[in-house]
Amino acid sequence: MTTIYLDYNATTPVAPAVLDAMLPFLRGEFGNPSSIYALGHRARGAIERARAEVARLIGARPEEIIFTSGATEAINLAIRGVAGGGGARSAIVTTTIEHPATEACCRLLEHRGHSVRRVGVDADGIVIPGRVAEAINDGTALVTVIHAQNEIGTIQPVAEIARRARAEGALMHTDAAQSVGKIPVDVRELAVDLLTIAGHKLYAPKGVGALFVREGIAIPPLVVGADQERGLRPGTENVAFIAGLGAAARIAADLLQQSARQMRTLSALLLARLEAEVPGLRLVGSPDRRLPNTLNLLFPGVLGRDLLADCPSLMASTGSACHAGSEEPSAILTALGMPRATALGAVRLSLGRSTTEAEVIEAASRLAGAWRRRQQATSV
Amino acid sequence: MTTIYLDYNATTPVAPAVLDAMLPFLRGEFGNPSSIYALGHRARGAIERARAEVARLIGARPEEIIFTSGATEAINLAIRGVAGGGGARSAIVTTTIEHPATEACCRLLEHRGHSVRRVGVDADGIVIPGRVAEAINDGTALVTVIHAQNEIGTIQPVAEIARRARAEGALMHTDAAQSVGKIPVDVRELAVDLLTIAGHKLYAPKGVGALFVREGIAIPPLVVGADQERGLRPGTENVAFIAGLGAAARIAADLLQQSARQMRTLSALLLARLEAEVPGLRLVGSPDRRLPNTLNLLFPGVLGRDLLADCPSLMASTGSACHAGSEEPSAILTALGMPRATALGAVRLSLGRSTTEAEVIEAASRLAGAWRRRQQATSV
Repeated sequence: MTTIYLDYNATTPVAPAVLDAMLPFLRGEFGNPSSIYALGHRARGAIERARAEVARLIGARPEEIIFTSGATEAINLAIRGVAGGGGARSAIVTTTIEHPATEACCRLLEHRGHSVRRVGVDADGIVIPGRVAEAINDGTALVTVIHAQNEIGTIQPVAEIARRARAEGALMHTDAAQSVGKIPVDVRELAVDLLTIAGHKLYAPKGVGALFVREGIAIPPLVVGADQERGLRPGTENVAFIAGLGAAARIAADLLQQSARQMRTLSALLLARLEAEVPGLRLVGSPDRRLPNTLNLLFPGVLGRDLLADCPSLMASTGSACHAGSEEPSAILTALGMPRATALGAVRLSLGRSTTEAEVIEAASRLAGAWRRRQQATSV
Repeated sequence: MTTIYLDYNATTPVAPAVLDAMLPFLRGEFGNPSSIYALGHRARGAIERARAEVARLIGARPEEIIFTSGATEAINLAIRGVAGGGGARSAIVTTTIEHPATEACCRLLEHRGHSVRRVGVDADGIVIPGRVAEAINDGTALVTVIHAQNEIGTIQPVAEIARRARAEGALMHTDAAQSVGKIPVDVRELAVDLLTIAGHKLYAPKGVGALFVREGIAIPPLVVGADQERGLRPGTENVAFIAGLGAAARIAADLLQQSARQMRTLSALLLARLEAEVPGLRLVGSPDRRLPNTLNLLFPGVLGRDLLADCPSLMASTGSACHAGSEEPSAILTALGMPRATALGAVRLSLGRSTTEAEVIEAASRLAGAWRRRQQATSV
């Protein structure tokens, strides 16, 4: 049976053009960017071109982009850099639907005595800006809110929250790992001070990411060493993957409108097919304020895990890949106020740029078939 | 004029077999290692195979290997993990000839109130174990000593120092970024508790490294997030580069004896040729306790920088790549007690597995010619 990949939120394949952009730096162009000869200068040039491309995708200036080994590191750099420094403001305001990396940073700082307030979401999985504003006070160093939720795809009102944070003198970080490349993301429109990008959600490889740090904001490095990335992220640069992230950013900018439209159409088709065949199927989260590619669906009367086990050639997940294999319901779904038993019926289907109509139709058919068989088995 | 690369200590090219080992994971095998389906399992399997290969190269157990984004991160994880935790022992003993990443970690902890003692080296660039032992006391958490010095290639008596550290109840870390793959490195023989490996000094790409952490030693993560690398190094794994590091470790083990012999022969030839043509040339550091590939040479009466500028098709450096372009003499050379003016005459030539006899002969001829021209220009 043909395999169908509908887990692009877990990770994307590397786009062929991205691999092409990386290969020279994995072959002859292997210079250390800090070296003084031409081979080194060309590696340095590749990094700076990539920086400009990533900046362009999100409306930033090149000097506002710091390359990291991925989104987790970028999130640590942002949150712990802003709030962990020991300044007069040390409190954090965040939400109950963050990625584990954000939650882990907050928990670490909380353990060290920082105040962390976690604002809940409505039943649609949307953070209410007014509630965030209520949680901010003059001790708040940072407000950090995920831009597009990785499991349910809801898009948060980051610009509105950022406006409120700024009014109170707090900085604003958003984890945009899932939104960049799927919807327009502009740091000026979002009015954020820091923004995290993940390469491997953007058709670049696993092991590279970036942090936007608005000009004028000084944060300390997380890892210390030599002077790479202006001392903010020392260690010899991953030239190949940085070049790949640059190419991925350029491609994402070029294809954004077209791929968003295509993913929206195909995910609507997938949902319609499943709704027609699975009575009682529910879409989790806001029906309209969502990523074009993400469907988190509750299948009634079954465990999402069992359903996926019955469709071994369909690659999807029950939650985030970070928690794959867990017996526990998704913490994100329970944060929406969902009962445990309901949450265990969740399946996340996330589409990508190369997802086809045929794949979507076939996936709906396999999932509906598996659901029917499980239902019949239970009712016997 | 043909280019000659003699800067393998700055960075190595990616070995073709290493690239071959990585490419599947940059193409079809793109699964997230945390995913529950076969594509994810295969990525997980690649990581675990690489872990076993890296472990085998250094005589460790697979579960003692943690993959990182490079040596700088591994060094931070080791030093700050052991000494920065706030336990009863918090002092560090190190040397004056460490890599900037180690020195930066020590400086950071010193700034936070930790005691840091930096033991000097003899004129040959060798740390005297007795002096390290004198610096250790019952407050010492960690002794950290570079295994093979990156600029001058001297091999430090790590096993002897580790024995003394252990006798005093301190842990021992060694930065083996430059030694692994060039000389035999065995964590049991060295008796170290932690050991750092750099991918890009080992014909794997820039952006991957590993830390050996002896079983039973608990250190906290530097970056927090989900559970990857047993929670010690969260963030979606760089599957491709980890697979590459595994292949690089396997190749290094296979070729170790042969390539060490070859580099020893060729560097002896290079030195002999230069000594014959450059009266007063001096080899920095111990003539025998050294890496087989590294020659740090003092050219009399010229600046190393000028000499290299006159040989644009010869790629080498005046110090470490981390400090390339600096007007200052190498801190490593001044740590050996060398006067500033002398130290500015240094050129580091580091050979690699693919360095040929013809390259070495040609490099000697170009450098000697450039030196003669500079000498004549000065004496006019």
